[in-house]
Amino acid sequence: MRYDLNNARELAIRVCVAAGASKAVATSLAEAAVAAECSGRSGVGFAHLPDYLEGFLSGRIAATEEPDLLFPTPNIVQADAKGGIAQLCFDRAFEELLSRTKTYGVTIFSLKNSYTVGELGYYVRWLAREGLVAFASTNGPALMAAGQSAEAVYGTNPLAFAAPVENRPPLVFDQASSATAFVNIRQVAERGEEIPEGWAIDERGQSTLDPREAMKGALLNFGGTRGANIALMVEILAAGTTGANWSLDAPSFEEGSESPGAGLFIVTINPELLSPGFSKRLASQIERLSSKGIHIPGGSYQTDDIEIPSSLVATLESYLIK
Amino acid sequence: MRYDLNNARELAIRVCVAAGASKAVATSLAEAAVAAECSGRSGVGFAHLPDYLEGFLSGRIAATEEPDLLFPTPNIVQADAKGGIAQLCFDRAFEELLSRTKTYGVTIFSLKNSYTVGELGYYVRWLAREGLVAFASTNGPALMAAGQSAEAVYGTNPLAFAAPVENRPPLVFDQASSATAFVNIRQVAERGEEIPEGWAIDERGQSTLDPREAMKGALLNFGGTRGANIALMVEILAAGTTGANWSLDAPSFEEGSESPGAGLFIVTINPELLSPGFSKRLASQIERLSSKGIHIPGGSYQTDDIEIPSSLVATLESYLIK
Repeated sequence: MRYDLNNARELAIRVCVAAGASKAVATSLAEAAVAAECSGRSGVGFAHLPDYLEGFLSGRIAATEEPDLLFPTPNIVQADAKGGIAQLCFDRAFEELLSRTKTYGVTIFSLKNSYTVGELGYYVRWLAREGLVAFASTNGPALMAAGQSAEAVYGTNPLAFAAPVENRPPLVFDQASSATAFVNIRQVAERGEEIPEGWAIDERGQSTLDPREAMKGALLNFGGTRGANIALMVEILAAGTTGANWSLDAPSFEEGSESPGAGLFIVTINPELLSPGFSKRLASQIERLSSKGIHIPGGSYQTDDIEIPSSLVATLESYLIK
Repeated sequence: MRYDLNNARELAIRVCVAAGASKAVATSLAEAAVAAECSGRSGVGFAHLPDYLEGFLSGRIAATEEPDLLFPTPNIVQADAKGGIAQLCFDRAFEELLSRTKTYGVTIFSLKNSYTVGELGYYVRWLAREGLVAFASTNGPALMAAGQSAEAVYGTNPLAFAAPVENRPPLVFDQASSATAFVNIRQVAERGEEIPEGWAIDERGQSTLDPREAMKGALLNFGGTRGANIALMVEILAAGTTGANWSLDAPSFEEGSESPGAGLFIVTINPELLSPGFSKRLASQIERLSSKGIHIPGGSYQTDDIEIPSSLVATLESYLIK
């Protein structure tokens, strides 16, 4: 079904509130879900909402919690989600993060005790729209093996990066440290197809093409040893420096009543303080790289109607009468 | 030939001074070359020194230049190498970088107009030894194709990361965005062997196994699309935010009399301000990950004698009588 952005946002807010979320929580989450659809990441858009709704109902997500914000130095914005959602923490911290970064050139946003953060690109895109360069990492329950491990040790541990580009949408990428995202394996399973080699291992640590076996086993990291190092860095930044749960200690985001207690770590940089004319210079460079065949990620962000499958709408609306 | 660290350092200083370097430049470079050998990265250790010596003699490296340091905010340490070496800039900035990061939690070190930086892990290892988490990127003359480009558009664009670990050497990785480093292709060429598939393309943009064709063509990035995005991020941080040359504009590090004008961008973080007990908690986690088969990079840093091949010693000593 086609929804214009306002109606889509309203639908998301209504179902979140029906599942017990405060208006503030519902609004932050709805905004992020719509944005994920606009950036073509439907796997972490409306299709991800049922995970949040079940989370509110089961207590895995604190549905009405307001985050605590701390400012231990002028350059650190620290949030404790207290089992709630990352999106609200980010919204509450956004203006502080922006003004501190504009003034000082660099700020850290550090979040712990959060549910999984949804589309990681969402956070850095907002910052880049305000003229900042941003680098973000997050973790979650262990789903991914790395290097020689025969079991999951990390979440899919995405890394996102964004930079402002004069007269264009920001450059944004948001990529899992896994060869693919968990939602893709779930989608392949729903279609009854096989997954490619190199995506996952089964419960016994063996390579598998069966998405259902893969979902019981673990994803595999992208890029061999170098990719495994990226996943390790993301884990250390997202869980180590924030004080969040290591992926190995994070409760499931799909079962039980405990929060995954995940972390989100963002470095925000004011590039104009470091190199005046940054976004103009980047615009020229992007044009040059594009002409040589380099894919510049993140350029497309559509703000027309979005498509939400009828079956998903029915699932979401079922929460209105629960 | 075996050298103890002091003698190796002295040899490096003497040949650098003979090639025209100031004592300060020679000392900073010697320290970094010895450290690269200690961390097992001989390709960017003494074997890399002839590139610097030729650089001093040809004018590609400003051999006696002292860097300018600027502090536009309390959280930015900005250096202009003025065509000199990155190592001296870093040494001159180190105490400021350290004290600012300890106080504020995060600082940026931004360097432009530099020769290629040698072992990138060197910089972050020093910071991690002082209890900081550090993330570094650097660029250099275009040597690497990415994604669908049929020619080189980036340097090998390494990314390095380090974190302090209680009662252990720091965790450190330092990895090119290329499937391999340029020096490895040169070494294969010297041995007269073939390079593996996926390392490089030739001058016409075609895949090649011939290291000599590869040296005329371009390296390839690691990790497919995700790896290409990492290389792009490194380029934007190292050249965009620092104001250094884009890789496409950087003069050769091997020919001519112009500096590559490369950039170095480091984010330093005081993890104890963000999450007290960080290095102790990381020590436990590393033990757990290791027990599950995860390779923890950077643990080995040997401080015994180092081996420098006789032919390389002869090459270096030839500069004493030039």
